[in-house]
Formats: sequence, C-alpha cells, structure tokens
Amino acid sequence: MADPAGPEIQRLIQLLARLPGLGPRSARRAALHLIKKREHLMGPLAEAMALAAERVVTCSHCGNADTSDPCTICRDQRRDPSTIVVVEDVSDLWALERAGAVSGRYHVLGGVLSALDGVRPEDLAIPRLVERAASEGVREVVLALNATVDGQTTAHYLTDALSHLNLKVTRLAHGVPVGGELDYLDEGTLAAAMRQRTTF
Amino acid sequence: MADPAGPEIQRLIQLLARLPGLGPRSARRAALHLIKKREHLMGPLAEAMALAAERVVTCSHCGNADTSDPCTICRDQRRDPSTIVVVEDVSDLWALERAGAVSGRYHVLGGVLSALDGVRPEDLAIPRLVERAASEGVREVVLALNATVDGQTTAHYLTDALSHLNLKVTRLAHGVPVGGELDYLDEGTLAAAMRQRTTF
Repeated sequence: MADPAGPEIQRLIQLLARLPGLGPRSARRAALHLIKKREHLMGPLAEAMALAAERVVTCSHCGNADTSDPCTICRDQRRDPSTIVVVEDVSDLWALERAGAVSGRYHVLGGVLSALDGVRPEDLAIPRLVERAASEGVREVVLALNATVDGQTTAHYLTDALSHLNLKVTRLAHGVPVGGELDYLDEGTLAAAMRQRTTF
Repeated sequence: MADPAGPEIQRLIQLLARLPGLGPRSARRAALHLIKKREHLMGPLAEAMALAAERVVTCSHCGNADTSDPCTICRDQRRDPSTIVVVEDVSDLWALERAGAVSGRYHVLGGVLSALDGVRPEDLAIPRLVERAASEGVREVVLALNATVDGQTTAHYLTDALSHLNLKVTRLAHGVPVGGELDYLDEGTLAAAMRQRTTF
C-alpha cells in the first residue's frame, strides 16, 4: 500500500531515494525529518540546492566541480603548475584536498577505462590530459587512481599515452589498500601515500 | 582541511549532513551526486522541497502531515470514526497505513512521555486525544506505541487518562514478527508470544 501522503510528499520521497546512501525507507525518514523542520531545514536546503544547481559548473580545464570556470584550484597562482594529479572523480579530488596532500593541480578523468562497461579512452578526459601534459610545462603526472583493476588498467594506459612526453609519470605509494577507494580513506593514509609516490 | 569547494557547495553539504542517516562523509557523496545530476535530480529535488515546505501542514485534528487540514485520512468518510489509533510519530502512522492495518483514524502524540528528557503530558497531544475520545462517539482507542520503556509508560498514562470514558483501550499484540526466526528473538518477545498464543 502507498504512503498515506499527498503527491508532493510522495515526489519528495522518490527524489530523496535517488541519493546515494538513502533507500526507500531512509528516504521516508529523511522526508519526514524535512517536513518536521520545514522552516529551519527544508526551506534552506531547497534554496541551497537551487543555488548550487544554478551556479556549479564543471571546470573546462581540469574537470573539477566549482562555481567558477576555471575552478578555484586552476586559478590559484600558488599551485605548482608543473605537477598534474590525475584522479578518477571529483570526490577523489576533494579527498586529496582534505588531506592537504597536493601542491599541484588536478585532472579529473570522469571515470576509468572498462572493457566490461564499454568505457573507452575517448569517453574520458584522456585526450585533454595528454594535451595539458604536453603544453603546460608539466614535469610530473601523478596517477592518483583507485587501486582497483580498472583503475590500474587505466594507469597503464595513461603511462603509455604519456610516454612520448618528457615527463615523469608516478603513482600513489602502496599503503592504499588493494580494492579500496580513495574517497573512503583517512587523511593520514592519503598524505603518506602522496609522499611515497613511486615511478610508474 | 576544508573541502576545496565554493561556499554554495559547502552549505549544501552542511545542510545534507543534518538529514537522518547521512553523516559528513555521506553528505559529501550525496552533494557530489546532486552536482553531477544537477539537471535531472538537484533541480527537481530543490523544487519538490520548496513545494513541500510551502504546502505541507500539520493536521489540526490528528497531527498527521499532509497538504490539507484536516488531512486526507481525517476527511475520508469511509474511515471508521469509532476507532482512534494512537501513534508516537507520523512515521508510525505511515507504517500502519502501508500495512493497510487500520480502518479507523489516527492520533499522533508527537513523542512519548519521558522523565529523563522532561517530556510531560502537556508537551504531547494528550489533552487533545482525551477531548477527541470524549466527543466523537469513539468506542475504542488502540495504543500503537513503540514497545520501549517510554512507550509503555505513555501507554499506562493514557489508559489512566482515558479510564473515565466509556470506551475500550487496547494495545498492539506482542509476538513473533511475520517471517521472523525464533532463534533470533529476545526472551521477552518469545514469552509474550507464548502467553498470547492463539488457536490455530
């Protein structure tokens, strides 16, 4: 039987259930919580989302999500332009930034190569990475990809793709648990892995 | 170190983290998911929240959350007016409705009595319940409260408060959950299920 709630509440629950980490049951709990705190939470959250939906853009340079293009990191003059840290996803970029582990800039691939899912190099921001690496006086490309099979396959592919350029390709040190994902790691481990990066 | 995101994203994460079931980490993941799907999810969700924040009201009759007052259930003429099912929270009302278990109407207390948290009868919708029970030709009040200490204390208090009225006060049966395994149940539930066994 359906929830005894109006279509507005039904729709709210359905949309909340599409957030990662919320199933149908927790979406109902969240909706009810929002309804109870409609002035102090639901209203402000609706506004924050509308604002973010309007303002947040993808950086055309590195692929980061920010309210400006180029993003805050790409515009930061104190960032070392000779190092590009390649990550799979914006969440990985955020994780590395939280760890304070990177003084260079980033490049968000938007995924990893996957024969199974049919993800090819041209589906990712790989051509743009090769372009950036060739043109920006880059001396080092750090492959900060997840320690999964697809992540490592992608790392190998990138090493090949960058091999004609006169630069060092490194990867994060061991310390990243096999099968683990960057976004779930603690800052200490990430910082150590960044310090101990090795030549690929 | 803070997330390398603009104040709009920061605020979105902070507000999302106040939802039940989302911590700081999962709020970040949810925010990123929203940012990625800003057209198909974040925009619609912002609208759904704004609409719900504007339209949803608390039923002055039973305490349900709906877009009309009296709510859909209180206005439904097919509902048996002689039975009131007392619940702690709107989520319990929704749960019973999903089960299709109630043909009567509801009364949402908005909590349970708690000496520890200083919740007194006048903090809950108890005076209003006594009023409704006395005036509406009610013949049965079902106490569908959680089987916690505070829930049972509240049930005892309500039984006293309603004792001067000519009506039946009942409570939900204790027993083995449908599909449940005896081996995983606590002794209290098993003892209650045994005491209240029914003819097969």
